[in-house]
Amino acid sequence: MIETPSLVDQYCHGVLRTELGLGTFEAQLVRTEGPPAPGTTLFDTQTGFAVRRWCPPLLGLEPHCPPARYLARRRELGVLESARRLLRGSGITTYLVDTGLPGDLTGPDEMALTGDAEAREIVRLELLAEQVADTSGTVESFLANLAESVHGAAAGTVAFSSVACLRHGLALAPEPPGPGEVRGAAGRWLAGRRVGGELTDPVLLRHLLWIAVASGLPLQLHAGLGGPGSRVDRTDPVPLTDFVRATAGLGTDLILLHGYPHHRHAAHLAGVFPHVYADSGAALVRTGARAATVLAEILELAPFGKILFSSGAHALPELHVVGAHLFRESLARVLGTWVADGAWCLEDAQRVAHMVAAGNARRVYGLQ
Amino acid sequence: MIETPSLVDQYCHGVLRTELGLGTFEAQLVRTEGPPAPGTTLFDTQTGFAVRRWCPPLLGLEPHCPPARYLARRRELGVLESARRLLRGSGITTYLVDTGLPGDLTGPDEMALTGDAEAREIVRLELLAEQVADTSGTVESFLANLAESVHGAAAGTVAFSSVACLRHGLALAPEPPGPGEVRGAAGRWLAGRRVGGELTDPVLLRHLLWIAVASGLPLQLHAGLGGPGSRVDRTDPVPLTDFVRATAGLGTDLILLHGYPHHRHAAHLAGVFPHVYADSGAALVRTGARAATVLAEILELAPFGKILFSSGAHALPELHVVGAHLFRESLARVLGTWVADGAWCLEDAQRVAHMVAAGNARRVYGLQ
Amino acid sequence: MIETPSLVDQYCHGVLRTELGLGTFEAQLVRTEGPPAPGTTLFDTQTGFAVRRWCPPLLGLEPHCPPARYLARRRELGVLESARRLLRGSGITTYLVDTGLPGDLTGPDEMALTGDAEAREIVRLELLAEQVADTSGTVESFLANLAESVHGAAAGTVAFSSVACLRHGLALAPEPPGPGEVRGAAGRWLAGRRVGGELTDPVLLRHLLWIAVASGLPLQLHAGLGGPGSRVDRTDPVPLTDFVRATAGLGTDLILLHGYPHHRHAAHLAGVFPHVYADSGAALVRTGARAATVLAEILELAPFGKILFSSGAHALPELHVVGAHLFRESLARVLGTWVADGAWCLEDAQRVAHMVAAGNARRVYGLQ
Repeated sequence: MIETPSLVDQYCHGVLRTELGLGTFEAQLVRTEGPPAPGTTLFDTQTGFAVRRWCPPLLGLEPHCPPARYLARRRELGVLESARRLLRGSGITTYLVDTGLPGDLTGPDEMALTGDAEAREIVRLELLAEQVADTSGTVESFLANLAESVHGAAAGTVAFSSVACLRHGLALAPEPPGPGEVRGAAGRWLAGRRVGGELTDPVLLRHLLWIAVASGLPLQLHAGLGGPGSRVDRTDPVPLTDFVRATAGLGTDLILLHGYPHHRHAAHLAGVFPHVYADSGAALVRTGARAATVLAEILELAPFGKILFSSGAHALPELHVVGAHLFRESLARVLGTWVADGAWCLEDAQRVAHMVAAGNARRVYGLQ
Repeated sequence: MIETPSLVDQYCHGVLRTELGLGTFEAQLVRTEGPPAPGTTLFDTQTGFAVRRWCPPLLGLEPHCPPARYLARRRELGVLESARRLLRGSGITTYLVDTGLPGDLTGPDEMALTGDAEAREIVRLELLAEQVADTSGTVESFLANLAESVHGAAAGTVAFSSVACLRHGLALAPEPPGPGEVRGAAGRWLAGRRVGGELTDPVLLRHLLWIAVASGLPLQLHAGLGGPGSRVDRTDPVPLTDFVRATAGLGTDLILLHGYPHHRHAAHLAGVFPHVYADSGAALVRTGARAATVLAEILELAPFGKILFSSGAHALPELHVVGAHLFRESLARVLGTWVADGAWCLEDAQRVAHMVAAGNARRVYGLQ
Repeated sequence: MIETPSLVDQYCHGVLRTELGLGTFEAQLVRTEGPPAPGTTLFDTQTGFAVRRWCPPLLGLEPHCPPARYLARRRELGVLESARRLLRGSGITTYLVDTGLPGDLTGPDEMALTGDAEAREIVRLELLAEQVADTSGTVESFLANLAESVHGAAAGTVAFSSVACLRHGLALAPEPPGPGEVRGAAGRWLAGRRVGGELTDPVLLRHLLWIAVASGLPLQLHAGLGGPGSRVDRTDPVPLTDFVRATAGLGTDLILLHGYPHHRHAAHLAGVFPHVYADSGAALVRTGARAATVLAEILELAPFGKILFSSGAHALPELHVVGAHLFRESLARVLGTWVADGAWCLEDAQRVAHMVAAGNARRVYGLQ
């Protein structure tokens, strides 16, 4: 039996502090553009079934119990006690928490406390830039504050995350934009912007990526499922190749988040470029009973030292649980089968399991 | 054992009324651009092997018997009796029949009679437009007749189908073309056209799609394998995303036909957009012994209420048989394994099987 | 048990004649853009694990022994004796050797001698053109010599290979360039070129492809993994469709090499176009413990008469061994499972195994 006692969730968000009804819970299960189709429910998805499999036992119910029964029990225990039982039941020992999503979500400290685990912060670049824009009066001060903010944030955080690829498309021009181009774009954006306005300008998105690259901190790029308003048509990381090539050898690692359904492409890039890493996370939560196969597909081309676990969970601690359980069970099953077939030896399998579950993340993010 | 007593084939064509020799039968097995390569035969494909597995027993022969022996028996019984035995042996209880392909094919009524089943018509938009063009004298009358024909057809049919994406590419401009643009395109097309000429003008193809969307009837879009003259390079539904987004919330459902080899992308779109459905059909007929895996891949991202069965069969009742048997066996195997693993409970598996086999199609197409 | 006594490796390179240390051996295992990331090793890949599984026993060691131990034994035996034992242990009976890569590599004759097998040469078009350019004084003589060289080479070789798609991208204009266009491109290239300079001009690359097509010899196109400086973003063969369509019916076969991770697309093209063949090779070497699944995916759409085995091996005889063992084991497992399930009969499975292992290659390349 292949075991993974430590588990570093290298990309997740906090959990909601508010009580949820059946409908509000369902809406957090899967990211969609609109409510479920008439006659259908988002509980009837791999994620919904996986939640019903793994979570009820942690709250004292039988697996696969109906959603209404599960949510009644969740309300009975209260949102805090439920989160406590769920997160502690996940087996995750370290959470890297992207704090860049809106909503009444727990931060890293509260995740650590609730989950009896370590937690560190991931800073989302676009939100940082929007906050800087909210408080900067001129183009010059905005650009100066932006650089300062990114470098300041780099001191207290383990990684940056970016949704530039979802907002702009992955085929972004690979080179850093010139200073004049940046000033022009900043002027236009600030002039047309109201407080809280989203950064979608391609020049500024690229400028921001390059400031982050210069910081040397690992840079997580959304390229695949997940993320709010995710673009189905902007998830294949292959068009990122030119940007990847442009950033090679600079000492900054790129982590391709949520590769599915293009996880084989993400794994390919992780195999070809020394500074690229493949995330095996959200893909498993979304594919449930198929998670072992999806994980095996990532294990085809990606070197075993370049694969990272994450839950990609957001809002519901159930998603952290499902991410962790599916990962551990899938990894044990896939590697165990290879050992049973004689393709791998047990010692290698155990070593690779530790790497993917925790060791790789510890090395990339400088955790101890 | 997971069972599916009802089976709605949500996309197929009629069967040929003429006797077939070895060569003419082989040519209908798989869609190719040209005859088989020297030294090869299309019987040596997954489809050919699946036909030899499932069909001989329905005509009183042993499974896997040689093609020549099978075709001799088929001729001995006669084309009508063979079709009768095959269709009745398929287990399909309702056929939705696209009548838009040329050839001496049975229509819905004859399919119902031969197969002892229900049958309803699907109207192919481009053929309808070509027929209207054949009988309209002026641009004005063509456009008026076209709108009237589509709306008239909507009354007696369960769905429209379109090959716009195969003819023009899937990245079609998402918005409806303006009236002037449509008139101009119609004028040019009618002026250069002879009776029977194919509609390939992108503006008119888009115009036609939007008339169909306005009808409220489910709209089936070819995006993947199958369809005559299918374009290998126009099968990924991801470039359709902008059109999908433009049609969201209008009350018209889109069904992505024949997703393979991009079935995971089609499933992704079905997961993100409430009005999008994924077809699990032709993919299985084409992949034979691999059908269970392909079906499992569709079951990754598509909500279970958004997946529809079809055979995609055309010309040969053998393809209806193979589509139905592969689907039922694959579904039972995939869901049965998940139940055996404890990932799903049996009750859920049985419920999902009924949904995918028939329930979803009944709801989407308003069948009882 | 499904057996494949003959094995034609339809695409490989020679092996290095020089002794290798741990680092130089590791660098040949997988093609990357740069050294392994700090803290990782390319031995921790599917290829590395497969080498450790299959090769040590051929040199008298236990499977899965550590890399250092394996390399010590390899040096102890000497590079020639190691190559002898490895190649003879691979079970490959015919090698088709692409001689177009630099380095101190064995040619076809030495491969035959060392491996106790047949061997034939594959000529790489771009290298041929570069050699012609090195010795031609004028545009006119270059173009005349080029045509003559290709036609001369066609007499003594079994196939041409081309990396045009990796150098220029796969969406190359499908038609042959005109004479004036070719002369202009040749003039510009020769004027700016130093001896040994690489051919990357898109017009000349297309010109070269069309000369090769005219020779009637099978043409192998790199489209996928492998090849030096492989471009991750230039591996999907779908954009090749227009070129494929333009070359249909001319009597020249196209072989799509190294389809993974786009092997399903390559298989699709092999299914649609009579003159297109799908290579199942390098994909298996790169995916190791997953090779059976990848092979099964190729067996979905590609007619069984259109699939060819290769190792894609380069420099290390270990890669020939791994390619052959993974292929034979995967094929036996995949087809054996289908026979056990009743999906195929044993006779068909055995026949298909012989076709894919050797028969198809013998027919396509005119070997006896």
